[in-house]
Amino acid sequence: MVESNSKRQLVIIGGAEDKDGDCIILRDFVRRAGGTKAYIVIITAATELPREVGENYIRVFQRLGAENVRIIDTETREDASSSTALEAINKASGIFFTGGNQARITSILKDTEIDLGIHKRFSEGIVIGGTSAGAAVMPDVMIVEGDSETHPRIETVEMGPGLGFLPGVVIDQHFSQRGRLGRLISALILQPAVLGFGIDENTAMVVTNNQVEVIGQGAVTIVDESEATYNNMGEILKDESLAICGAKLHILPHGFKFDLKTRQPILNNGSVANVSVPVDLVST
Amino acid sequence: MVESNSKRQLVIIGGAEDKDGDCIILRDFVRRAGGTKAYIVIITAATELPREVGENYIRVFQRLGAENVRIIDTETREDASSSTALEAINKASGIFFTGGNQARITSILKDTEIDLGIHKRFSEGIVIGGTSAGAAVMPDVMIVEGDSETHPRIETVEMGPGLGFLPGVVIDQHFSQRGRLGRLISALILQPAVLGFGIDENTAMVVTNNQVEVIGQGAVTIVDESEATYNNMGEILKDESLAICGAKLHILPHGFKFDLKTRQPILNNGSVANVSVPVDLVST
Repeated sequence: MVESNSKRQLVIIGGAEDKDGDCIILRDFVRRAGGTKAYIVIITAATELPREVGENYIRVFQRLGAENVRIIDTETREDASSSTALEAINKASGIFFTGGNQARITSILKDTEIDLGIHKRFSEGIVIGGTSAGAAVMPDVMIVEGDSETHPRIETVEMGPGLGFLPGVVIDQHFSQRGRLGRLISALILQPAVLGFGIDENTAMVVTNNQVEVIGQGAVTIVDESEATYNNMGEILKDESLAICGAKLHILPHGFKFDLKTRQPILNNGSVANVSVPVDLVST
Repeated sequence: MVESNSKRQLVIIGGAEDKDGDCIILRDFVRRAGGTKAYIVIITAATELPREVGENYIRVFQRLGAENVRIIDTETREDASSSTALEAINKASGIFFTGGNQARITSILKDTEIDLGIHKRFSEGIVIGGTSAGAAVMPDVMIVEGDSETHPRIETVEMGPGLGFLPGVVIDQHFSQRGRLGRLISALILQPAVLGFGIDENTAMVVTNNQVEVIGQGAVTIVDESEATYNNMGEILKDESLAICGAKLHILPHGFKFDLKTRQPILNNGSVANVSVPVDLVST
């Protein structure tokens, strides 16, 4: 079950978001962080090039007018308890996780002072953003790594603990661009989660409390396993292929919304897309 | 609606099928064509390298013991009315379409004497096989070309008439390997078809009358739009993104079956996967 949090604000980005043009996605993040009055902390734990990656985001956030932008560069778990870092977290109105390798984020940060501090600020309502590896860490159980462009197999994905800002779901990024349907389905079958989100590049799912809104260039592919009639997880050996029957599939581009509690898409006009329409009407 | 044909036999291959190892898929085709007594006609219309591609298949089919294997190389529509070609079609116990460019197959063959001849033999019960481009031409409306690794958009695919051996569906090939979910969904929304099949490489859907069986290394991804609650086809402009809500998704590996009439997967043990199982049971 997806946990409720009435102040939850997340901007979860599928990677490769626009940093030079309209910046629809990063603009939304900065606005949620307080606009020109924002105090943004960039967490570069995912990358081995923290300066390069971090300064790129400083440049964008400052161009969009954020007053204070600073990097927390944590190379080790010791760094992740530093008092200056904690002070910044406590002042932050928005915290942003860059891309890189999601396993670096959790191995350096998980359960450190900084992690606890970020969760405290999150529960107080400040926006948390993340792109690529920074998107992967959002659930409580994340895709650590896995193969793209393959059908579902157990061996396709390695799962591990995430940071848990959006528990009960599975998230994959660079979704259409890297052909990751098989990887998302594998993760979904391996986990007790029933909702899988595949986020395209330059696309984000913006979570406000229990509502997701899709923004950006691509789409968010949602696989709902809750009504699936069958999977063969209990019957196969490790190197065999996974099967799934009757999962529900939604593909939502910019402007569409999705309710995490009812697991129903919400159309552009605000109506809920849960009424079956006769086939002839749908497919013309 | 998928048309019924009580003698229908099709081996529809997602491309890159094994030709050197166990040859599970081509072996199945040869067996259906009569085994060692088979008379197999290879249609190379799709490729600009008919000799090279054709001789590769002659080699495999002969290695598997087929008695007679010959190529019909049609470069033009005139070739596609030659009496020697027609004679071969009439003797054939199996006809195989190679890969290449599906638009070449339809522009050279469609509605020619050979096309009519193949359809006559098909209705008499001989097996028709096709791989890659040769798989694409199976429906009555086919994907002519389109972008891979993108979310659904109208501009993603160009549709055109297929050869119509399996009307009422949409087929895409190299499915997982080229990240073609967006392309398949686009085709499905653009067409009155409600069933889309995405066939992986070295994988085939074998159609016998109204039953599909999956064989090979990968999986067949089936998107059933018949119960979809919404798509935005009627509301968007040409360069905007497509949305779909509530489509049904099945991913079936080797050994799984699917009923084209009831649109239900049939499990390995023969039972129909159409009963909803409580979430907890499914997802563990």
